[in-house]
Amino acid sequence: MQYRIDLTNDEVPTKWYNINADLPVELPAPKNSEGKDQIATLPQIFVNECLNQEFSTERYIKIPNEVRELYQRLGRPTPLCRARGLEEKLNTSAKIYYKREDTSPTGSHKLNSAIAQAYYAKKEGIERITTETGAGQWGTALSLAASMMGIDCTVYMVRVSYDQKPFRKTIMELYDGQVHASPSENTEVGRKVLAENPDTPGSLGIAISEAVEDALTDDKVKYTLGSVLNHVILHQTVIGQEIKVQLEKVEEEPDTMIACVGGGSNFGGSLFPFLKDKIQGNSDSEFIAVEPSACPTLTHGEYRYDFGDNIGFTPLLKMFTLGHDFVAPSVHAGGLRYHGMNTQVSLLKNEGYINPVTVHQRDVFEAGKLFAMCEGVIPAPETNHAIKVAIDEAKKCKETGEEKTIVVNFSGHGLMDFKGYASYMDGTMENSK
Amino acid sequence: MQYRIDLTNDEVPTKWYNINADLPVELPAPKNSEGKDQIATLPQIFVNECLNQEFSTERYIKIPNEVRELYQRLGRPTPLCRARGLEEKLNTSAKIYYKREDTSPTGSHKLNSAIAQAYYAKKEGIERITTETGAGQWGTALSLAASMMGIDCTVYMVRVSYDQKPFRKTIMELYDGQVHASPSENTEVGRKVLAENPDTPGSLGIAISEAVEDALTDDKVKYTLGSVLNHVILHQTVIGQEIKVQLEKVEEEPDTMIACVGGGSNFGGSLFPFLKDKIQGNSDSEFIAVEPSACPTLTHGEYRYDFGDNIGFTPLLKMFTLGHDFVAPSVHAGGLRYHGMNTQVSLLKNEGYINPVTVHQRDVFEAGKLFAMCEGVIPAPETNHAIKVAIDEAKKCKETGEEKTIVVNFSGHGLMDFKGYASYMDGTMENSK
Repeated sequence: MQYRIDLTNDEVPTKWYNINADLPVELPAPKNSEGKDQIATLPQIFVNECLNQEFSTERYIKIPNEVRELYQRLGRPTPLCRARGLEEKLNTSAKIYYKREDTSPTGSHKLNSAIAQAYYAKKEGIERITTETGAGQWGTALSLAASMMGIDCTVYMVRVSYDQKPFRKTIMELYDGQVHASPSENTEVGRKVLAENPDTPGSLGIAISEAVEDALTDDKVKYTLGSVLNHVILHQTVIGQEIKVQLEKVEEEPDTMIACVGGGSNFGGSLFPFLKDKIQGNSDSEFIAVEPSACPTLTHGEYRYDFGDNIGFTPLLKMFTLGHDFVAPSVHAGGLRYHGMNTQVSLLKNEGYINPVTVHQRDVFEAGKLFAMCEGVIPAPETNHAIKVAIDEAKKCKETGEEKTIVVNFSGHGLMDFKGYASYMDGTMENSK
Repeated sequence: MQYRIDLTNDEVPTKWYNINADLPVELPAPKNSEGKDQIATLPQIFVNECLNQEFSTERYIKIPNEVRELYQRLGRPTPLCRARGLEEKLNTSAKIYYKREDTSPTGSHKLNSAIAQAYYAKKEGIERITTETGAGQWGTALSLAASMMGIDCTVYMVRVSYDQKPFRKTIMELYDGQVHASPSENTEVGRKVLAENPDTPGSLGIAISEAVEDALTDDKVKYTLGSVLNHVILHQTVIGQEIKVQLEKVEEEPDTMIACVGGGSNFGGSLFPFLKDKIQGNSDSEFIAVEPSACPTLTHGEYRYDFGDNIGFTPLLKMFTLGHDFVAPSVHAGGLRYHGMNTQVSLLKNEGYINPVTVHQRDVFEAGKLFAMCEGVIPAPETNHAIKVAIDEAKKCKETGEEKTIVVNFSGHGLMDFKGYASYMDGTMENSK
C-alpha cells in the first residue's frame, strides 16, 4: 500500500512561482508614512535581489543552480504522505495527504527561503546577515543557510525565549550563528531599552529594531526576514510545486487545501501554485487559512494600510491587520502571533479566494496528539492548527459520505518546542479565548 | 547531482535476515547460573514468537504483512544520503554515505524492533508490554508501537533521566505510554529500594527489575527489550537490507562500514547483511564498531559468560563484557553505556570479522558539529561516535588518495537530547578518559 509519494533529487523545481503575475487585481504598492521616506531606505537594509523579487511581476523566476543544489543536499524534495492511519481512526471517506516540510534538517519549511536569501547576500558581497527570531525556527534555518554559504549570521532572540528555550540558542550556535538575547548591548536601541528597564523580557519589535540597526551600520551587512514579504513566499513555492507533481503521480486533485497562517509564508508557499489555477478559473478547490483564535488577523482584522512592525519603522503595507500595536496573547504557536499578513495573501482573502478560520489552543493540541498517535510524526504547535481543521473537514466527509481529497501543509515538527505538549498533557493548558 | 538514494514504499524488505544461519562457528547457548533455572523462566517473561526468533537458525524470516505496512506508514524505507558537503569540507577522495534512521518519527532506528515486538505481543493476546528506558529512545519507540497495536505500554524510566529530561516523559505520554520514574511504588523491588533510599537516582538495573517483575505478575503482560538480544537485531536488519539495494542502485560496494555499538542493535541491523558476504568469502569490506572510551566493551572487555543485567537475574550469555557490575561513567551517549554486548556481535568480533575502536566524548561532539554544519542534520550523541570514525577514515583517504566508499549508519538525531551539545558549545564538556 502506498503511504508516501516520493520525488527524486532531480525533481526539485527549477523555478519559483510568483503569484504577482496572476493576481486578480493589482497588488497595492507599499506607501511611506507621512513625512518619512521609508521606501528609499529599503536598499540599505535588504539584499538587492530579494528587493527585486519583492516587486517582480515575472511569473517564474529561475532558482540559481547553487540554491537548487542546496535544496537537494538538505532534503528536498520532501515526501507527500497519505495519512491512512488518521483516516482509519476517523473512519472517514476523505483522503488526507500531508506535505512533510518537517523533514528539513532544521525542522520546518523556513530553510527554503533562508538558503535563497543567504545565497543572494553572498553573491552581492555581503559578509554578514542579521535577523530576529521569536520561536526560533527562522533563526535556526538562517544560521544553517549562512554557514553553508560561508557568511556570518547574527540573530537577535527575544530575551524571554532566549531564557526559556536554551537549546534553541544551542542549535543556532551549533550552526555557527551568533545569538544575542534582545535587547542587547550590541545596538543603540538595545542599550537604550536596557538602561530604562534592565529586566525587560524583550519583544519581537525590539529585536527587529536591533537587527535592522545592526545591518545599517555597515554596508557589508544586510537584514533578512523569514515571512510576511513577497520574496519569502516566492522562495517557499517549491513546496506547492512539488505537491502538484506528487498529486499528479497518484492522479489526485485537491478538493480542500489547508495551511496555518502567521505571516503567510508556509501558507503561500504551499498553496499559491494551486491558487493560480483557481484565479485562472481552472479549479474549484477550497483554500483554508487557519489562525489561532488569539491572533485572528485574516478572520477579524481590517484590510488597510498598516506598518509591518510594531514601532512604525517599515513602510505602510496594504494588508489584513489587527493594528500594528496589537500584542497577541502568549500562545505556544509563537509563529502565528503576527499582527499583520503578507499582502498577496491579504488581497486573495479580500477577493474571496481564501477562507480563514480560527481555532482554539487546547483543541489544536488535542488534534496534534491524535495525529501523532496515528501517523507517528509530532506536529509543531503551528502545524497543529492546520491538522485540527483537516480533522474537522474529514469528519464532515464522514457525515456526508463525500470522498474529498484534503491536502495539508505539515509545516514543521514539534520536537524542539515541547513545552506546549507538556502543558497539554499535564492538564494545565487553558483553552484560548 | 544525486545526494539521496530513495526507495519507494514497495521496496521495504519482505523478510528479516538472521545471521544465526551464517555464523562461522556455532553460537554458544545461554546457560543457567549455578543452582538457578533462569532459562525456564524466559517464556513467562518474553513474547513467545520473539523467543522463537531468538534461537532460530532460519536464514530469512518473513516480516508479517501488518508489520511491513507499519514500517511503510512510519517512514520506511529510509533514505541513504551522500555526504557531499562533508566530503567537500574534508577535501577527501573518499565517498561517504549515511543511512538516515533518524527519519523515523521517534528519531532513531528503535522503532524497527518496537513495531515487531508489539505486533507479536498483540497477536499472542498480550494486553500490556513493559520495558525500561534510560536515554529514552527505546521507551519512546515502544510507546508509539504499542499505541499503534492498540495495547498498553508501561515504561520504567531511570529517575535521574525522568527528572532531567521531562520532555522524554511527555513524548512517551503523547503516544499513550505510561511512564514511571524508577524506582517506583509500582513494584516490590521499587518499594524496597525506595524504603531504603527515598532519594535514589535509580539505575537501569533497578528499572529492568521493575519492568520484569511487572510482567511476571500477570500472564497478559510481557516484558520487551530494545537491544542486546538476537531477535532485536533480527528486526533491525531491514536497515542493512535497504542499504544493499540503495548501494546497488548507484553501483557502489562498501569498503568500510561504520556503526556505533551499545547493545549492538543498530550495528548488527545495518551491518549483518554485509557481514554475511564477508563470512561467505564474497567481500573484503571492513566493519568498524565504535565505542565510547568510557565503555569499551568490545575493545577492552573479555569474551566470557556473564549476566546480561547488573543484578544477575538473566541467564549467562557468552559475550564481550566489562563485568556485569561495571558502571560506565556518565557520558551523554546514554545508549552506549552497556557493560555487555549482543552475543552474535561478540562472536564475530572474536572471530576477527569486526574491528572495534574507541573514541573520546569531546572529539565525537566536535565531529557531530562538523557534520551538522556540512549536512544540516544533527546526530544523536551515540551517532556522533560513528560520524567521528567516518571522518577519520575519510581523512586517511585524503592522505593516501584512496577512493574508498564509506557507509555510516546514522542511527538517530539529537534533537531530543541537546544537553550534550549545550555543554560542548559552552566549553564545559570534558574529554572522557
